[in-house]
Amino acid sequence: MRVVDLIEKKREKEELAKEEIHFLLSEYLKGNVPDYQMSAFLMAVYFNDMTKAELLEFTTLMRDSGEIIKFEKINKFLVDKHSTGGVGDKVTVVLAPILAALGLASTKLSGKGLGHTGGTIDKFEAIKGFKFSSSKEEVEKIASKTGIGLMGYSDKIVPLDKKLYSLRDVTATVPSIPLIASSIMSKKLAIQSDVIILDVKVGDGAFMKNIERARELAKRMIEIGIGFKRKVRAVLSNMDEPLGYSVGNAIEIIEAIETLKGNGAKDVKEVVYTIAAVALKAKGVIKELKDGYRKIDEVINSGLALSKLKEFIAESGGDENLVNDYSILPVAKEKLEIFSQNNGYVAKIKAEEIGKAAMIIGAGRATKYDKIDHSVGIKIFKKVGDKVEKGEKLAEIYYNDEKNLKNSKEMLLDAYVLQNEKVSGQKVVIEIID
Amino acid sequence: MRVVDLIEKKREKEELAKEEIHFLLSEYLKGNVPDYQMSAFLMAVYFNDMTKAELLEFTTLMRDSGEIIKFEKINKFLVDKHSTGGVGDKVTVVLAPILAALGLASTKLSGKGLGHTGGTIDKFEAIKGFKFSSSKEEVEKIASKTGIGLMGYSDKIVPLDKKLYSLRDVTATVPSIPLIASSIMSKKLAIQSDVIILDVKVGDGAFMKNIERARELAKRMIEIGIGFKRKVRAVLSNMDEPLGYSVGNAIEIIEAIETLKGNGAKDVKEVVYTIAAVALKAKGVIKELKDGYRKIDEVINSGLALSKLKEFIAESGGDENLVNDYSILPVAKEKLEIFSQNNGYVAKIKAEEIGKAAMIIGAGRATKYDKIDHSVGIKIFKKVGDKVEKGEKLAEIYYNDEKNLKNSKEMLLDAYVLQNEKVSGQKVVIEIID
Repeated sequence: MRVVDLIEKKREKEELAKEEIHFLLSEYLKGNVPDYQMSAFLMAVYFNDMTKAELLEFTTLMRDSGEIIKFEKINKFLVDKHSTGGVGDKVTVVLAPILAALGLASTKLSGKGLGHTGGTIDKFEAIKGFKFSSSKEEVEKIASKTGIGLMGYSDKIVPLDKKLYSLRDVTATVPSIPLIASSIMSKKLAIQSDVIILDVKVGDGAFMKNIERARELAKRMIEIGIGFKRKVRAVLSNMDEPLGYSVGNAIEIIEAIETLKGNGAKDVKEVVYTIAAVALKAKGVIKELKDGYRKIDEVINSGLALSKLKEFIAESGGDENLVNDYSILPVAKEKLEIFSQNNGYVAKIKAEEIGKAAMIIGAGRATKYDKIDHSVGIKIFKKVGDKVEKGEKLAEIYYNDEKNLKNSKEMLLDAYVLQNEKVSGQKVVIEIID
Repeated sequence: MRVVDLIEKKREKEELAKEEIHFLLSEYLKGNVPDYQMSAFLMAVYFNDMTKAELLEFTTLMRDSGEIIKFEKINKFLVDKHSTGGVGDKVTVVLAPILAALGLASTKLSGKGLGHTGGTIDKFEAIKGFKFSSSKEEVEKIASKTGIGLMGYSDKIVPLDKKLYSLRDVTATVPSIPLIASSIMSKKLAIQSDVIILDVKVGDGAFMKNIERARELAKRMIEIGIGFKRKVRAVLSNMDEPLGYSVGNAIEIIEAIETLKGNGAKDVKEVVYTIAAVALKAKGVIKELKDGYRKIDEVINSGLALSKLKEFIAESGGDENLVNDYSILPVAKEKLEIFSQNNGYVAKIKAEEIGKAAMIIGAGRATKYDKIDHSVGIKIFKKVGDKVEKGEKLAEIYYNDEKNLKNSKEMLLDAYVLQNEKVSGQKVVIEIID
C-alpha cells in the first residue's frame, strides 16, 4: 500500500477501505508517514469530506491510539457534556454541580483554553490550591463522593489527535467537519459515560459560524456515536454574544456561583437548564424537558447544587468558603470602564472580539506556551436587546498590566454592534437533538 | 506573514497577492517553509486553481530560482518544442534535424524519461559515445554549426521545480493544471527561444486524459507565455495509441531515422510536419501551414534533414554511420512475438499500458534510480484502424532478461482493444493553436 495512492483516492472522492485508513493512521502514528503526506491528505478531506464508514474507522483509530478510561466504581448515570468552545462559557462549572445534586454524575475530560475561547481547567485553577486531577483513580474517588468527575487531558488519551491537531493547526485544515467530529468524538469515546451531550456553539464567536454547519457537525458526531452504540444528544446554542456577563477565569467562577445561587444570567441559565434536562431525559427520569426545569429549580433553591460545588472544590484542594467570600479569588488591581459612544439597541456583541480582548490582557492564551492571569477579564453590562445611551457603561476591563489595554478597549468597542430599532428577544438554545 | 494564512486564503479561493506568493516560494526554497505546509497549499491549489496573476507570479519565481540561459551566438530563429510526454514519442529526434534543414534552430532542454513516457536524452544515449551536453557554451557551439541545440537539464535550471515536483509526486498533487503549466513554462522561460511550441498529448497514455483538460492546459501555458511577452503555440495531439511503431530507445532512433528517409509512420509524420509548419509560420516564412508541408517534404527528399541529424550525432560524439548501419546501435538478444487472440479491428491501443510494458523490461525507469537498457523495447505491427485476424502478429518484444517478460506480454495483449466494426481513420493532430 502506498500513501500517495490513498491521498489520490481521497482527492478523487473515492471511498477508502477500512484497511487503507488503518494503514494510513497507524503508520502515521508510528512516524512512518511523513507530515507532508498527511497534510495533503487532510486538505483533500477538507474538500472531499469523509463517508460514514471512513469517519467511523478514522475515529476508531484515533480513540485506540491511547488509553481508554473506564470508571467502574461510580455507580451513577454518567454524563459527559462537551462544548465546542465559546466565549464566557462557564456552563460546566454550573452544570456539573446541578447534575450532581440531581443524582447524576459528570465524567468528562476538561481542557485548557486556547485562542479566544476559555477552558474549564483554567477557570477552576483560578481557585488557589485547586488541583485538577489526571489520575483516573483520584477522579473516580472524587466523583463517587461528589458526583463531579472532571479530569484533565493527558497525553495518554488519544495522542493521535494531538499529533494531527498540531499539523492541522499550521496547515489550515482545522475547520473540516469530519476532522472536528472525529477529534471531539474520539475523546468522548475514550472515556466512559452513559450519555454524551454536545453543546455545539453557533455564531461569530464559535467554530461553526452558521446554523447549517453547526447542524452538520452535530449530525456527524451523533452518527459516530450511533456507530459506537453510544447515546449522544446535541444542543445547538447561540454564540452571537458572550455567554453571561463575565469573560475571564476568576470572574467566571463568581458568575457560575451566582447562577447556582439563583442569580444567573438568562442565557447561562437557558443553556444549563436545557442540558441538565436533556441529561435527565436521557436517563429516563423525565419524559418532557420542561419537567426537568422544575427539578433543576429545586436543587438550586434548596442550595443543594451549590453545596455540591463546595464539596468538589474542597475535595480538589481549594477553599470552599470562596462561594461566600469572593475575595478569596484573585482580583485584578486595575479597572477600566468602557462607555458607549452612541445611542441604540445592542444588536450583537461579537463574541470572538470579546474573547480576544480578554485574551490579550492575559485571560487567555494566544499560544499554548502563554501563561494565564486568572484575575483579569471583562465584565459586560449590556447584552443583546438592551437599550444603550451615549455615555452609558458598556463594560469594565479588569487588568494588571497596561500593555495591550488600549487594543483591548478598541476591540471591545468594536465588538458592540448597535442599531436604532428595538431588538426582538433572541433565543440562546436554537435547536435540541435528543 | 504566516504561511498558514496563505494556505487558508488559497483554501477559501481568495487571490494571493504578489508579495504573498513571493514570500511562500522564496521561503520554501530557502528551507524555511516546511514540506507539510507546502503540500497542503499544493492540494488547495489542486482544488481551487490559481488566478492568472497568481500563476504568473508563481512561474516567475520558479524561473528565477535558477540560471537563465541566453544563446547570444546562434543567429537563427530559435524553436523550443516541448512535449507533455507521450509513448513512442520520438518527435524531437525527427523534428530537430528538419528544422535545422529549414534554416531554423532548436534550443531546448531535454529530459530523461520517468514512468511510462520516454525521454529524448535516453533515446540519444542509445548511441554509443553520444554525450548530451549541459554546458551552454558547448550547446551553443553545436547549435551554431548544426542548428540543433539540445541541452540536458541541470540542477541549476529551475531548482524550485525539482523541489516542488518531488513533493507533488508523493502527495498526489501532480495532475493540477496550474502546477503543470508553471512547471513546464518556468523551464521554457529559463532558456532563450523565439517560439515555444507545446505538443500537448491527449488520451490514455498522456497526463491529460481528455481534450477539455488538454485545451485548458494549453490555454494556461499560452496565457503564461503572453504574460512574459513570449510567442507560444500549441498542438494538441492524440495519445490513444503509441506514436509510430516503436517504443524503446535504440528502436525509436531507428524509426526516427527512417522517418527522415521518407519512410515514417503516418502519425509520426503528421505530428512532426504540423509542428515544423507551425514553427515556419511563427517565423513568418509561410502564411498557411500547408505551404510548410511542401518545404518539409523537400528537405526530407533531398536528404538534407538526415544529414543534419548525422552532423548532430557526430558533433555529440556518436558514430554518424549508424544512419545507414543500424547494427551500430545496441540490439536486444531475444525477441518474443505476440499474436492476436481474436479477430477484429484495432479500436485503441492503450498507450500507457504499452509504455509500462516497455518500461518493465528495461526500456524506461519506474524510479529515477533505475538504469535503462537502451536495446530493449516493443515494436507494434498493428495500429488503430488495422484489421487483425486471430493468430496474426500484433507486436514483438525485444528483451535481454526474462524477468517481467510474462507481465509485459500480458500488458501488451491487454493494451489492444479490438472491435467488430471498422474503425474510421482517426486524426493524430486534434487541434492547433497558432
